[in-house]
Amino acid sequence: MDKILYGKDVNESIENELNDKIKLLNAKGVKPKIAIVRVGENPGDIFYEKAACKKADKLSVEHNSIAFDRNIAQEELIETIKELNDDRDIHGILLLRPFPKHMDDDKVRNSVIPEKDIDGITDASLIGIVTGEHKGFSPCTPKACIEILKYYGKPLEGKNVTIVGRSLVVGKPLSLLMTNENANVTVCHSKTKKEDMIKHCSFADILVLATGKTESFTHEYLSDGQVIIDVGTGVGKDGKMAGDLDINEVKESGLRRLSLTPVPKGVGSVTTAMLMSNLIEAAEKNPD
Amino acid sequence: MDKILYGKDVNESIENELNDKIKLLNAKGVKPKIAIVRVGENPGDIFYEKAACKKADKLSVEHNSIAFDRNIAQEELIETIKELNDDRDIHGILLLRPFPKHMDDDKVRNSVIPEKDIDGITDASLIGIVTGEHKGFSPCTPKACIEILKYYGKPLEGKNVTIVGRSLVVGKPLSLLMTNENANVTVCHSKTKKEDMIKHCSFADILVLATGKTESFTHEYLSDGQVIIDVGTGVGKDGKMAGDLDINEVKESGLRRLSLTPVPKGVGSVTTAMLMSNLIEAAEKNPD
Repeated sequence: MDKILYGKDVNESIENELNDKIKLLNAKGVKPKIAIVRVGENPGDIFYEKAACKKADKLSVEHNSIAFDRNIAQEELIETIKELNDDRDIHGILLLRPFPKHMDDDKVRNSVIPEKDIDGITDASLIGIVTGEHKGFSPCTPKACIEILKYYGKPLEGKNVTIVGRSLVVGKPLSLLMTNENANVTVCHSKTKKEDMIKHCSFADILVLATGKTESFTHEYLSDGQVIIDVGTGVGKDGKMAGDLDINEVKESGLRRLSLTPVPKGVGSVTTAMLMSNLIEAAEKNPD
Repeated sequence: MDKILYGKDVNESIENELNDKIKLLNAKGVKPKIAIVRVGENPGDIFYEKAACKKADKLSVEHNSIAFDRNIAQEELIETIKELNDDRDIHGILLLRPFPKHMDDDKVRNSVIPEKDIDGITDASLIGIVTGEHKGFSPCTPKACIEILKYYGKPLEGKNVTIVGRSLVVGKPLSLLMTNENANVTVCHSKTKKEDMIKHCSFADILVLATGKTESFTHEYLSDGQVIIDVGTGVGKDGKMAGDLDINEVKESGLRRLSLTPVPKGVGSVTTAMLMSNLIEAAEKNPD
């Protein structure tokens, strides 16, 4: 019934492109390097850190991990970030969040300079998304969604997009990025009534699910021929990793010509490639 | 056929509220004061400046206008803004834009401190809108749209809103503000196909027109019972001021129970009240 939009194929294409760019940079004596800064031992942070290092190794990109005890003073963390800002060998900084509660999130994240903010966490990067100017960088998950659509030949221009979820890391930045790409974008959320949610979702050419409510979207929200980008990650009814889409229910529904990203192996698998893509762009713009 | 949502009634209500707040501030020895900074002799700027001064006078709010020749050096302008930032008698700054072309718009507008950015032109104010936190202030036109809806008892929560226009001064900030107010918001624009535009517009409970294409929206985009907020201002077919809605065509169409803001005497007439509302809020937060 469906076309599955695997992240793997997108990754291969991006990695080929990045390899070419890295060769050009190396020829100029530039070795792209990422600094990864982690505070505490959050398993999610460690998982993402490992994935980023693995992707960096695959691309022969240098990486430097710095881990702090979760009780570190905020000033000490900011001091380290400032040193990385000034370090001409470092082209991008991945600062894992959320920080421990004794820290001022605004202050810490905005201590990264926009030129090295390859995870798109600073106000400057957010402003760049709102204005459509290329200040800072787009956050990796929204960028992954757009890259998957591009790879599979699903243009955004003039398309009706519905995004379910309005978080600062996915829904809001993605809605702005897609508006900048000339899509007609509707944002729904937890306060949207079910009948409106069904109308907005089923009307969309491209539906993005980013609610975190695992397996909550069934066939009644969908229509034939849609593209569905599933950003959710959770544990499904069968105990395995699953997205916001109830994929088993949808499979049996008789809906036709759906194109959808799987969970796992979909959006999530493309985020580290986006991080590397931002890093290489940073190295190109500011080689030293 | 229609209920006309006049700005005048909204203004009276806001002015009453502001008068009470100003009395309280005065009792504490605080006299709210606005500085208006203009570069050059743009008629639109002068019109807005006059309207702001008139509203300030009506509320017995002090105002100080500073006008520069359009050839003034950027540094001199920024120096003046910094003096106003430091001036404890000034609670808010209205910096009229656009600036002459020899100036760096980003640099000049961001020289206003967020605490005095009562026209919502700084990046800090924009960030506040994206995050939904109360940093800086909302720009006056989007705020006027929301205030009109509140005054006339048209709640946003759970409502389907379509905004036509994606500018940085109206469409984008308004879409974020309305999403924060729990509306389901769709943004359409110049690249939206006509058939999609009709679907999105006619489906909306609340339709906001901010395209600047005078009298371009006829009855085919509308449906019975809608609330229409017309942000457009231009010259109509009869030579008089008109909005984006073709009001004469709509009047004859037989559509029922529409509620709409007129042009003139609608949204535009509420913006200076919003400026004063932001000023009083600034004075309350930072009395000196």
